[in-house]
Amino acid sequence: MAAEIVNPRNDSGTEGAPEELFDPVFALHRGGKMAVQATVPLRDKDDLSLAYTPGVAKVCTAIAEQPELVNDYTWKSQVVAVVTDGTAVLGLGDIGPEASLPVMEGKAILFKQFGGVDAVPIALATTDTDEIVETVVRLAPSFGGVNLEDISAPRCFEIERKLQERLDIPVFHDDQHGTAIVTLAALRNAAKLTGRTLGELRAVISGAGAAGVAIAKFLLEAGLGDVAVADRKGIVSRDREDLTDVKREIAELTNKAGLSGSLESALAGADVFIGVSGGTVPEAAVAAMAPNAFVFAMANPNPEVHPDVAHKYAAVVATGRSDYPNQINNVLAFPGIFAGALQVRASRITEGMKIAAANAIADVVKDELAADCVIPSPFDERVAPAVAAAVAAAARAEGVARR
Amino acid sequence: MAAEIVNPRNDSGTEGAPEELFDPVFALHRGGKMAVQATVPLRDKDDLSLAYTPGVAKVCTAIAEQPELVNDYTWKSQVVAVVTDGTAVLGLGDIGPEASLPVMEGKAILFKQFGGVDAVPIALATTDTDEIVETVVRLAPSFGGVNLEDISAPRCFEIERKLQERLDIPVFHDDQHGTAIVTLAALRNAAKLTGRTLGELRAVISGAGAAGVAIAKFLLEAGLGDVAVADRKGIVSRDREDLTDVKREIAELTNKAGLSGSLESALAGADVFIGVSGGTVPEAAVAAMAPNAFVFAMANPNPEVHPDVAHKYAAVVATGRSDYPNQINNVLAFPGIFAGALQVRASRITEGMKIAAANAIADVVKDELAADCVIPSPFDERVAPAVAAAVAAAARAEGVARR
Repeated sequence: MAAEIVNPRNDSGTEGAPEELFDPVFALHRGGKMAVQATVPLRDKDDLSLAYTPGVAKVCTAIAEQPELVNDYTWKSQVVAVVTDGTAVLGLGDIGPEASLPVMEGKAILFKQFGGVDAVPIALATTDTDEIVETVVRLAPSFGGVNLEDISAPRCFEIERKLQERLDIPVFHDDQHGTAIVTLAALRNAAKLTGRTLGELRAVISGAGAAGVAIAKFLLEAGLGDVAVADRKGIVSRDREDLTDVKREIAELTNKAGLSGSLESALAGADVFIGVSGGTVPEAAVAAMAPNAFVFAMANPNPEVHPDVAHKYAAVVATGRSDYPNQINNVLAFPGIFAGALQVRASRITEGMKIAAANAIADVVKDELAADCVIPSPFDERVAPAVAAAVAAAARAEGVARR
Repeated sequence: MAAEIVNPRNDSGTEGAPEELFDPVFALHRGGKMAVQATVPLRDKDDLSLAYTPGVAKVCTAIAEQPELVNDYTWKSQVVAVVTDGTAVLGLGDIGPEASLPVMEGKAILFKQFGGVDAVPIALATTDTDEIVETVVRLAPSFGGVNLEDISAPRCFEIERKLQERLDIPVFHDDQHGTAIVTLAALRNAAKLTGRTLGELRAVISGAGAAGVAIAKFLLEAGLGDVAVADRKGIVSRDREDLTDVKREIAELTNKAGLSGSLESALAGADVFIGVSGGTVPEAAVAAMAPNAFVFAMANPNPEVHPDVAHKYAAVVATGRSDYPNQINNVLAFPGIFAGALQVRASRITEGMKIAAANAIADVVKDELAADCVIPSPFDERVAPAVAAAVAAAARAEGVARR
């Protein structure tokens, strides 16, 4: 790094990153992106005697006698812990907990802005699966839900499963399920636009990490005709002997067609490409897909297939980028999902609630449905309330709501 | 409890505590007392690309390369974890983490209101000393400081010590040090008012829990002539064989006069009574104190000596109550202490910083100094800035400041 430069915006003369002088991103991030605020007055001793001692003792006693009242008389039932270990942050990989904090803060304020849900960044100084589970279990009395974030595969699967087994509040790994939900929403509308059912579609997913595995399972649950998943060594198939437990499960669940070999060969005749891996797919492989194909190239900042290339062959093109149409952005899902789950005090987020969320996102697109509009904008204000309502209703229907 | 009553204020028809209909405390607490807020705009995709992806990746990368930048570009250096295990909450005792949350939220908003410090309630589902330590160490990357709260003695001593050994951010058990600091502030002004030095004073402390132990040690450091501590069995003295490790240390440090026996007998001729125990001190014992005595009867809601009784014999009377003069209230200390420590990114809160805080609180009372004004009002807006400045200066002087 270049020599440090005293930052002129900083009253106390602290040194910041040298880039700050030249980059609005650093200027924006100075001091962080969030704060807490009191929602009750604290002007005088009467206020203090209600909000703090001696008054607060009555509320404590009531909760001690009737534990579920904690949800009525504290912020517990409206605050989510955004938990990471910093091992799989954006495309940056294992950068540690401190360096992950700007993302976790960003996530927290998106929860608030889009879902009205309070959220607190919790970046943990451990990457041990059991230690993460124990730590979050101990934190759980203070939170209404847990959003796992940017935890690397395969540990993320075990952490989520163990946490949900031990906790009676929703645990949701957004990199898995958020991505899967928004992908399904876009796919449903793309199928509708081209007059097909999900059952008619064969998809190939590039990437067998958290997102790829979750998307594969979720699309199959939603009724897709067939799904194959490729990792760096090619299609995950039953004849491979190098598979982790998670990939072995994927091999059992997916790939009815019995494909093996390269991603490129599997794309021949496929209806859907879903990229959550990075890397590049050759144009020839895209050209070999079925007519009216969908290309969802979601790697950021460089999609696996450049949209200009994809458009030459595909009926619908989506990316993870905000500067192209059809952005597959998790912010369409997680704020409304937690808002709905917290509203009815759901004990978990079921598959049915996720399907309901995907359908609600898709259904926001009505008359606007077109090849360049299969998914709403992240800023469409209709989305979060629609998702929350659908998720709350599904939670009630599935028996996991507690009010 | 009586049958539950549907709460008319609750749109979603949830049932709350039956008391709510009749008690403004419950009405105030509905939905909790705090929220998070974004401090940066999130109006459109340009905002999102700065505060979240892709822009945020630059900030993450900068922190990964230069870890101390986490303090500049996230809220870490301005947010405190308010950590409890719910074992010693107010006068209610071990009511568990959920029932402690209303107090922790109250504390969090006091941090914000009085010190401008963000704070997050963390009530833990464990009372095991080592588990609490491990958990807080794992949380530490996300926080600039740790305020321990309402953790029972003697575990609180070991937890604080082990945490401070392992962390390079301030760890402060407010029930100990906050109380000790405000007590010393009041005592300094009472001494000044009556023309005495601290070295001339002999104090008797009723209570050998977190507060009593901390006050005893702190007053000796500040130069008090002699201090004796009484637990339920009487004065803590070297000849007692029933002492815990902590009380044995107190026996070594205190009680130069070699007192033993009852609290009441120790009060004969004493200059200062400090009550942090509850219970009642007989009027005869107060009457036997030295002339111009100070009675700080801080138990809430029932002081160990009623102020009307204390005033018959004492020159200065203080309590923990807001409805009498001279309220010994921790809110005079902790917001400014953390504000000052965070401002200079202190690695710990030293004894010198605590003494500086006590002196700053005392010094706010200038011309107003009188028997019914030895300590500022909790709402005196001069206090927190004065404490913060004094603590920051002391941190620099003691070499624990990092900017």
